[in-house]
Amino acid sequence: MMYYIRYGFLVLLIHNVSDMRPFTELYQNYQEQASLIKFPSHPQKLYESITYFMDSPSKKIRPVLCLMGNELFREIHGDSYMAANAVELFHNFSLVHDDIMDHSTLRRGRPTLHVKYGGNTAILAGDTLLIHSYMQLNKIAIDYRGQVMSLFSDMACKVCEGQQMDIDFEEREIEDLSYAEYIKMITYKTSVLLGTSARIGALIGGADSQQQIDIYELGKNIGIAFQIQDDFLDAFGVAAKTGKQIGLDILENKKTALLLKAFELADPVRKAHLKNAMTITGEDRIEAVISIYKALSIDQWAGNAIRHHTAIAFESLDKIAVPVYKREKLYELANSLLVRES
Amino acid sequence: MMYYIRYGFLVLLIHNVSDMRPFTELYQNYQEQASLIKFPSHPQKLYESITYFMDSPSKKIRPVLCLMGNELFREIHGDSYMAANAVELFHNFSLVHDDIMDHSTLRRGRPTLHVKYGGNTAILAGDTLLIHSYMQLNKIAIDYRGQVMSLFSDMACKVCEGQQMDIDFEEREIEDLSYAEYIKMITYKTSVLLGTSARIGALIGGADSQQQIDIYELGKNIGIAFQIQDDFLDAFGVAAKTGKQIGLDILENKKTALLLKAFELADPVRKAHLKNAMTITGEDRIEAVISIYKALSIDQWAGNAIRHHTAIAFESLDKIAVPVYKREKLYELANSLLVRES
Repeated sequence: MMYYIRYGFLVLLIHNVSDMRPFTELYQNYQEQASLIKFPSHPQKLYESITYFMDSPSKKIRPVLCLMGNELFREIHGDSYMAANAVELFHNFSLVHDDIMDHSTLRRGRPTLHVKYGGNTAILAGDTLLIHSYMQLNKIAIDYRGQVMSLFSDMACKVCEGQQMDIDFEEREIEDLSYAEYIKMITYKTSVLLGTSARIGALIGGADSQQQIDIYELGKNIGIAFQIQDDFLDAFGVAAKTGKQIGLDILENKKTALLLKAFELADPVRKAHLKNAMTITGEDRIEAVISIYKALSIDQWAGNAIRHHTAIAFESLDKIAVPVYKREKLYELANSLLVRES
Repeated sequence: MMYYIRYGFLVLLIHNVSDMRPFTELYQNYQEQASLIKFPSHPQKLYESITYFMDSPSKKIRPVLCLMGNELFREIHGDSYMAANAVELFHNFSLVHDDIMDHSTLRRGRPTLHVKYGGNTAILAGDTLLIHSYMQLNKIAIDYRGQVMSLFSDMACKVCEGQQMDIDFEEREIEDLSYAEYIKMITYKTSVLLGTSARIGALIGGADSQQQIDIYELGKNIGIAFQIQDDFLDAFGVAAKTGKQIGLDILENKKTALLLKAFELADPVRKAHLKNAMTITGEDRIEAVISIYKALSIDQWAGNAIRHHTAIAFESLDKIAVPVYKREKLYELANSLLVRES
């Protein structure tokens, strides 16, 4: 607020300035709005399953990114809450359907929707959430509704395409895959939703095309960095700090950024060692694979890759000509996502 | 065209008249438009599966109903083709997901999408079709796009709800179910899409609210009549005429309109006979159940029910103040759907 008093008038001339609130405050703000999303009560099983899933505790990163995208340019317009609801409903749709495909049994610490209500209801619950995301978008002002829906649908298709690429990944031989394909897959599967959430908010907030692209790149690259970090922490994290068991990806021979990069960097002898290590049963596999990762400096490589995408994200943000104090809250959010202690 | 010459000027004063083309002509017309729906090529499996499904021969009743809804009022506006594409894409989405839920192996004479490409790709293909239906709607004129999308989304939710009711039906005891619930279930599951397809076309064609409701009721009741007829023909049809094996529903103890009505009409003794007949193994069950249906005059009841809904449909159409010769093509379509020889 001091900023206002000192530079107030000049800054007001350049921008319709309002303060940029931190994630936690916008989270609270969004939670109130989200509670206004209502579903019918019948058929009971369908809507009970949707409420069960939507009510489970979640970080609401996407809807808050949407609000931040708006607030970076102007004070939050009511339409951004509709858009925030749409991206949150869409995110839940994709989780419900992904959990079926991945045979996941736990989500947000509770049984997945299909485990609790059956696969058929889970398919329908996902479908209904997707339809409701468009119902939210249909409430926003006609001036830019078409543009928002177009960005949203392009993103939605990419998310489905990314999930298909992930399914294909699991069926293909590791040596036929590349790290570049992995980046494309995770970009589509998870990062375009982050980028688009921020971009739609910015569009509603009055950002021009270049600013929209910059904030999209911010969200997208944070998403990519976050995903590589997730893979990194599975092998090199400290369970006490991450709260996750170490080596689960290795036990599943999951095609992570680390494993794909290791196959790209290894000479034929090391490649043979790695393949062999992947056949070891039980916990010993974890140690064997990690020791090969270390020999290939995969830990350092991963650190660099995370920094690379974080740098692109921040450079994109820097390009946006809004007062620095407004951008700070987005740096804070990015850092809170990316500085999970290893 | 003779009509034009004779009454031309007067009719033109009442309506912006163009000839109302029959189903077959609009079908051809729509086919050309539908071929313009393009999907990307990557990921190959996802889009190959969608093309496989969309290219299988189908009657295109919903998109043509949409075009007829428009042409009943004014000559076809380009937007109606987008709306027609949307209802057709949506219909295909619902078939792909329903086939997974119902474990169906054949659709339009070919293996179902999930049988050919796997359940995961089938879930994603359905999701992608649903998203593409909204992409089509987003192309139509801004003046009524919001209204169209609102009608479309309400319909889409009902279709999912109807499918959930159908799943619930299969899990519930036949004696806990009513014919009224059955009507609600099939209305949601199949008929609101027919009604909404026609209504959206009419809206684009400039119909007022009451006319939109009337044409919606037309489509909806034709759908209901068609569904009861489908159940009727399973028991009382002639295989040589319907091209379908008789008694398949009975062999599966499917909860059809006929079975539900039979349970409602039967006294305790007949109810016991019917329950007993349903436990007979093999083809003998068909004869046993049909003889009870006949004793309860279920065949006559079904004929009346079909006529009842057909009458509501035609009364709704009669209310619409457009020249009779324009309405005729819709009567023709309804009759072609409903007069399948038993």
